[in-house]
Amino acid sequence: MFQQIFSPSVQHTLDLIGIFVFAISGALLAVRKNFDVFGIAVLAEATALGGGLFRDLVIGAVPPAAFTDLGYFLTPLLATLLVFFLHPQVERIQVGVNVFDAAGLGLFCVAGTTKAYEYGLGLTASAALGLVTAVGGGVVRDVLANEVPSLLRWDRDLYAVPAIVGAALTALCIGYDVLNPLTSALAAVAAFVLRLLAMRFHWRAPRAWNRRSTVREEPPDQAAPPKATA
Amino acid sequence: MFQQIFSPSVQHTLDLIGIFVFAISGALLAVRKNFDVFGIAVLAEATALGGGLFRDLVIGAVPPAAFTDLGYFLTPLLATLLVFFLHPQVERIQVGVNVFDAAGLGLFCVAGTTKAYEYGLGLTASAALGLVTAVGGGVVRDVLANEVPSLLRWDRDLYAVPAIVGAALTALCIGYDVLNPLTSALAAVAAFVLRLLAMRFHWRAPRAWNRRSTVREEPPDQAAPPKATA
Amino acid sequence: MFQQIFSPSVQHTLDLIGIFVFAISGALLAVRKNFDVFGIAVLAEATALGGGLFRDLVIGAVPPAAFTDLGYFLTPLLATLLVFFLHPQVERIQVGVNVFDAAGLGLFCVAGTTKAYEYGLGLTASAALGLVTAVGGGVVRDVLANEVPSLLRWDRDLYAVPAIVGAALTALCIGYDVLNPLTSALAAVAAFVLRLLAMRFHWRAPRAWNRRSTVREEPPDQAAPPKATA
Repeated sequence: MFQQIFSPSVQHTLDLIGIFVFAISGALLAVRKNFDVFGIAVLAEATALGGGLFRDLVIGAVPPAAFTDLGYFLTPLLATLLVFFLHPQVERIQVGVNVFDAAGLGLFCVAGTTKAYEYGLGLTASAALGLVTAVGGGVVRDVLANEVPSLLRWDRDLYAVPAIVGAALTALCIGYDVLNPLTSALAAVAAFVLRLLAMRFHWRAPRAWNRRSTVREEPPDQAAPPKATA
Repeated sequence: MFQQIFSPSVQHTLDLIGIFVFAISGALLAVRKNFDVFGIAVLAEATALGGGLFRDLVIGAVPPAAFTDLGYFLTPLLATLLVFFLHPQVERIQVGVNVFDAAGLGLFCVAGTTKAYEYGLGLTASAALGLVTAVGGGVVRDVLANEVPSLLRWDRDLYAVPAIVGAALTALCIGYDVLNPLTSALAAVAAFVLRLLAMRFHWRAPRAWNRRSTVREEPPDQAAPPKATA
Repeated sequence: MFQQIFSPSVQHTLDLIGIFVFAISGALLAVRKNFDVFGIAVLAEATALGGGLFRDLVIGAVPPAAFTDLGYFLTPLLATLLVFFLHPQVERIQVGVNVFDAAGLGLFCVAGTTKAYEYGLGLTASAALGLVTAVGGGVVRDVLANEVPSLLRWDRDLYAVPAIVGAALTALCIGYDVLNPLTSALAAVAAFVLRLLAMRFHWRAPRAWNRRSTVREEPPDQAAPPKATA
């Protein structure tokens, strides 16, 4: 992804970091759902690679990077091992995991937008696909775990908006022909900081006006993330 | 889709109408599930574009139409805005929405079959893919919303059969080399009318013989669609 | 798949057997979930063809075999008819179905690995895709039926491990250039026997260490497969 912009090794390292933190989030959900070690590995792989896999299928980049780069495949397995043996410790540093996840979100929305544009999509479609790259893995994770995707729930802090901002900024930079390592990094940082602020101040998006839902809302203790116990 | 048959602008308008009404059905489910505005938009896009996206990936038409035509991407956002601000009104005209959804079903099963055949699939496979184009978006919608797909449930009025009839009629017309705007329209209308009749008379498909299911059936008030309140 | 290895007709017959038994497992779940006859057909098709369809999309083999070979499409419909009319009898021979499903698992992990390698993937990626070919249909089945994928659950007998072993053996044979009908068959038989042993002795994979899950475990009578009644 945006190979021309960063040196390949820097970009590859950033990709692997993003994959690693997304895999951690998948593995942690698998532990909470009582899955066995293979379930943990499957959910880690799907969360880490799902978004990029969908993007590559849409733009016709087959076989997708997830199946051609061994590092992409092995990194989620590393995350699986870590969570398998140390998950109470990993959950205790949930804040740290969330910060890394925000970094992954920032990196992936920029990289996804750039790669989609390189494959000939328009600017709007590239930004939309960048968004899907960033948030798609989390949706696959929640669908496989038979949960309502956290992305769609109103009682979760903003997740789509930071990715939309990062992808839109990247598309704007491409449109004005000023995409370079600096502006790419700025777009990623904007998404990253926005996500951190959303988590810090519990920013949420509005639900429909005059809502008269017939769906019973879950009790708050269900909706809250599980507490990590010492 | 079937560009040679209707004039492109007529066909494009029909496509956008189908996309719009499918998006409305996705957005309404999102409101019922208490999703926030981004959840509504995601479900609207997925419902409207999911079936065609799957078809385009299968026939190798990448990037899919959903990512190359800006109108396809923006129409579901329009539906999102409408439902976000006016959803009690939209639900009150649920009957009207259902009629449009039936129209979308008719249009998409014909267009999907035709496009699949143009890309070299056999007649049976084309009809199967036309069916998937028509009903796929609704399945994606229900899977993302963590519900049993309405398509599969026995307590829903026939939905697959009208699409199967429309797709099969289209494949027959292709097979006998009589596909033209008139026969295409007839196939779409046949699916449309069949769906309207199924809704009007609550036609349902049989379940397996000698059923001794161990799954508790949901109480009827759960299964019934939510009432719109004035 | 691996056309050069077995004579095409033998391979095709093996494929159809695998598709048939996977379709049976999808159709039986649909009956338990109270789906109507079209829901049974959809779940049978998705279970039987889902894994191979995903593999073909990833390796760029479009249109996928599922849409070019009429036999692949019709076999699940045959399974649907059988289960629709005779499902108490089919459930009573659940043991037999499980044995055939294990055979399908063995065949598909070998065939999937071989086909992925033929399309240019590396050995590790080919084995991973062989695994996905074998277990993907079951995941699609469970996601469509709105259940936690049986593949991920700790309270199910080992399913992934036999497929991993079969796929890895196949990749090893390719790597040492000794893949032939005999070694292919041995790899498939290894996966088959391992799965039979896992079912016989209820082998299960471990869950994460120091598990303190906040998810309530389902009561055992829910988790147990439904009894077949005479």
